[in-house]
Amino acid sequence: MKVIRIGILIFLCFWKISIFHLQAQELPKPNPAQLAWQNAELGIIFHYDLHVFDGLAYKQSKNRITPIPDIKIFNPSKLDVEQWVISAKEAGAKFALITATHETGFALYPSKANPYNTLALGWKNGKEDLLGDFIKACHKHGLKPGVYIGIRWNSYLGVHDFVVDGEGEMQLQRQRYYNNMVEEMVKEICTWYGPLFEIWFDGGASHPEKGAPDVLPIVKKYQPECLFYHNDQLAEARWGGSESGTVNYPCWSNFPFHFTGSGESAPREIWKDGYKLLKTGDPNGKYFMPAMADAPLRGDNGRHEWFWEPNDEHSIYSLDKLVDIYHKSVGRNATLVLGVTPDTAGLVPHSDRKRMQEFGQHISNMYREPIVTSNQSKNQLTFKKQHPVKHIMLREDISEGQKIRSFRIQEQSNGKWTDIYQGSSIGNKHLIILENPVPTKVLRIIIDHAVGKPKLLTFNAYENLQNNP
Amino acid sequence: MKVIRIGILIFLCFWKISIFHLQAQELPKPNPAQLAWQNAELGIIFHYDLHVFDGLAYKQSKNRITPIPDIKIFNPSKLDVEQWVISAKEAGAKFALITATHETGFALYPSKANPYNTLALGWKNGKEDLLGDFIKACHKHGLKPGVYIGIRWNSYLGVHDFVVDGEGEMQLQRQRYYNNMVEEMVKEICTWYGPLFEIWFDGGASHPEKGAPDVLPIVKKYQPECLFYHNDQLAEARWGGSESGTVNYPCWSNFPFHFTGSGESAPREIWKDGYKLLKTGDPNGKYFMPAMADAPLRGDNGRHEWFWEPNDEHSIYSLDKLVDIYHKSVGRNATLVLGVTPDTAGLVPHSDRKRMQEFGQHISNMYREPIVTSNQSKNQLTFKKQHPVKHIMLREDISEGQKIRSFRIQEQSNGKWTDIYQGSSIGNKHLIILENPVPTKVLRIIIDHAVGKPKLLTFNAYENLQNNP
Repeated sequence: MKVIRIGILIFLCFWKISIFHLQAQELPKPNPAQLAWQNAELGIIFHYDLHVFDGLAYKQSKNRITPIPDIKIFNPSKLDVEQWVISAKEAGAKFALITATHETGFALYPSKANPYNTLALGWKNGKEDLLGDFIKACHKHGLKPGVYIGIRWNSYLGVHDFVVDGEGEMQLQRQRYYNNMVEEMVKEICTWYGPLFEIWFDGGASHPEKGAPDVLPIVKKYQPECLFYHNDQLAEARWGGSESGTVNYPCWSNFPFHFTGSGESAPREIWKDGYKLLKTGDPNGKYFMPAMADAPLRGDNGRHEWFWEPNDEHSIYSLDKLVDIYHKSVGRNATLVLGVTPDTAGLVPHSDRKRMQEFGQHISNMYREPIVTSNQSKNQLTFKKQHPVKHIMLREDISEGQKIRSFRIQEQSNGKWTDIYQGSSIGNKHLIILENPVPTKVLRIIIDHAVGKPKLLTFNAYENLQNNP
Repeated sequence: MKVIRIGILIFLCFWKISIFHLQAQELPKPNPAQLAWQNAELGIIFHYDLHVFDGLAYKQSKNRITPIPDIKIFNPSKLDVEQWVISAKEAGAKFALITATHETGFALYPSKANPYNTLALGWKNGKEDLLGDFIKACHKHGLKPGVYIGIRWNSYLGVHDFVVDGEGEMQLQRQRYYNNMVEEMVKEICTWYGPLFEIWFDGGASHPEKGAPDVLPIVKKYQPECLFYHNDQLAEARWGGSESGTVNYPCWSNFPFHFTGSGESAPREIWKDGYKLLKTGDPNGKYFMPAMADAPLRGDNGRHEWFWEPNDEHSIYSLDKLVDIYHKSVGRNATLVLGVTPDTAGLVPHSDRKRMQEFGQHISNMYREPIVTSNQSKNQLTFKKQHPVKHIMLREDISEGQKIRSFRIQEQSNGKWTDIYQGSSIGNKHLIILENPVPTKVLRIIIDHAVGKPKLLTFNAYENLQNNP
């Protein structure tokens, strides 16, 4: 009881200090899209574009400025976007995204606004609308659909960092055309396929005042429930500062700006020190902007491939590395988005899918059965017998903002409480791996510091069961 | 007989003088494509492109640099390219051309090389291949099909006078892409649809050494019988120096260069004095390069419209003006190409077609019945009674080159020969209108000057019958 009283005392102390930085009523809160996006935890993004079929190694810097000579190479023999969605579900994803357009500018759906699309392939098999079919498959399999729209680069029309290449009146007219085309595409994507979970503008969609397409009002008008990621006017999530699939610990959902910059125009505060601010956020930031940790599944052994290439299976992350990535993203209050790339058959390759299945199964097994189910009103776990606790899962209610700023986990032995973990951020989820599990019967969490009145949603402990299937 | 002897004497004198300029064996000869093209005399070119549907006045300088915002406006409700071909036939044309692409860059056929084509419209009516259907209709109705390919401008891809707008590596890569795309399109057009009568590169196709697509070898390989018009390496016909539908008299099929230049790069000798060299040619030119007189049918009343616009019927040339144009083009050894533009219904408008029918009928009536049919071996016409001769038609055999350099027409009255017309060039056809017809019974032609041994194919005289139908 004494320890608890001290804990409460410390809590109150820090609470008073904390309001010095941020009043509880000023605490940034997620909108419903952000809350759902954090809760979803894991998404898969499918990259698919013309150059998958060119038989060449993908070099982004060259690809961005080099049109594909012949779009007819895009000829997937067994195209089945439902198989993509199923593979995402098997990986445990709650949402999935598809590149409606990437840097070639080629649209994977029969856009009326952008003639450079699948209709130009002249298929007669009814599979021209990869985007529409993908979204249908998401609904069928209970995943939330998202769309990636690449507007920063367009090798076909000659767009470099949002700017149409050229000069004089032709450049002005073609920029106007391009901006209008993009806006119409965004409108199509927002109005043709029902509610979307996330719209992802690659590299940010810049700002209409900088001459870029004016996409924010369109998304807000037609998809008010959709997460907007992102342009210079708004970012409802932020890039986590690397494509490693991980963020720092702590990683706060708060951020000092309402945007993170687009393309080559991000503010210095954001990119200095290796994008540290993106990786950690700022507990006192005035804007709710949770972090995305993204990585391609084919990111191992010195490779980093968002797009399929032949004979590249060795670049698929090992299961161990994927699990580690998961703990350093989802387990650190970020949303993990893994990149998967279908092959020239139009399917997620067997080896990739197998790894996704293993990963989904592994995480599911690992966190399926806590030693005991905590009651939301209690901050203490009491087991029937001693268990060597390997993993702890913490979740706080972030619907009114991320409140907890520091906490400790203690275990009781012989009537004495001992700290076994000290942490700061919890947020949507914090996963703790105890490297040297000590058998214990009672655990508790002490929240030393919070803004406002925090509410713990989950306090679960697990033995290391996944090694004993 | 004395006069004939003098004529022969003069002929021999001038023949000797003429070889001072050009030896008979050096006389440039038409290839089969050029001979057929001159013999054909009249073609119709159909211009059709996206902006026909935009409801705006067509301004070429703006159109060239301004992409069409929405290709779906291209939606002809009653599209029937066979009706176009029939209207051309009714006008008396022996060949017809269609703009496979014009300055928007939009292709009127399902090109594999250029994705910006009718397939992107998503039609399901089987009418996507306007070019293929047009060529089929030409064969069905006995016209020779030709194709116009616009590569100098492409507002969609940002091409200005053959050069892709922009700078640096992206410009280089996109220029490479564009050139390859054009070359592939030319190959498609040359190999998909059977023999073509003429391929018309608007403004010339420049020169591969200037960085432009290398189209000449493709046309020569796949369409060796087709008239190549034109690039900086070769012009098998030449623009007649205006878009008035007329050329000067004389208008020689010989020319001092084997090309006329492309775009903004034509040599000064060609464009000086208001393109006079194009309008007249050069009797001593070493290259056979007959002249095309082109004009839009909608070229009257201060208008000059290759493309349909609403409420523009008053710009259709009157019948009288069309007949005058005919005489100042076909009647001066040029090939006349009239521009006709289908409307938003996809049909040649009623008013245009009616005028084409009137014109075809009028010319046919005018030259259907000579007063007497001349024998090819004779240079004299003897009628059974006196006729007021209004029109004379002359044709020389140009298969070995244009040989006749000057001639006179004489009529015999009371045993005395009197010159009633003096001319220089005859070529494929020379039509003479005698403003003050004098009743006469005997006419003859005296060839005063020729290179080599000329052969007269036609020497016909007509009364002014078209006024007395």
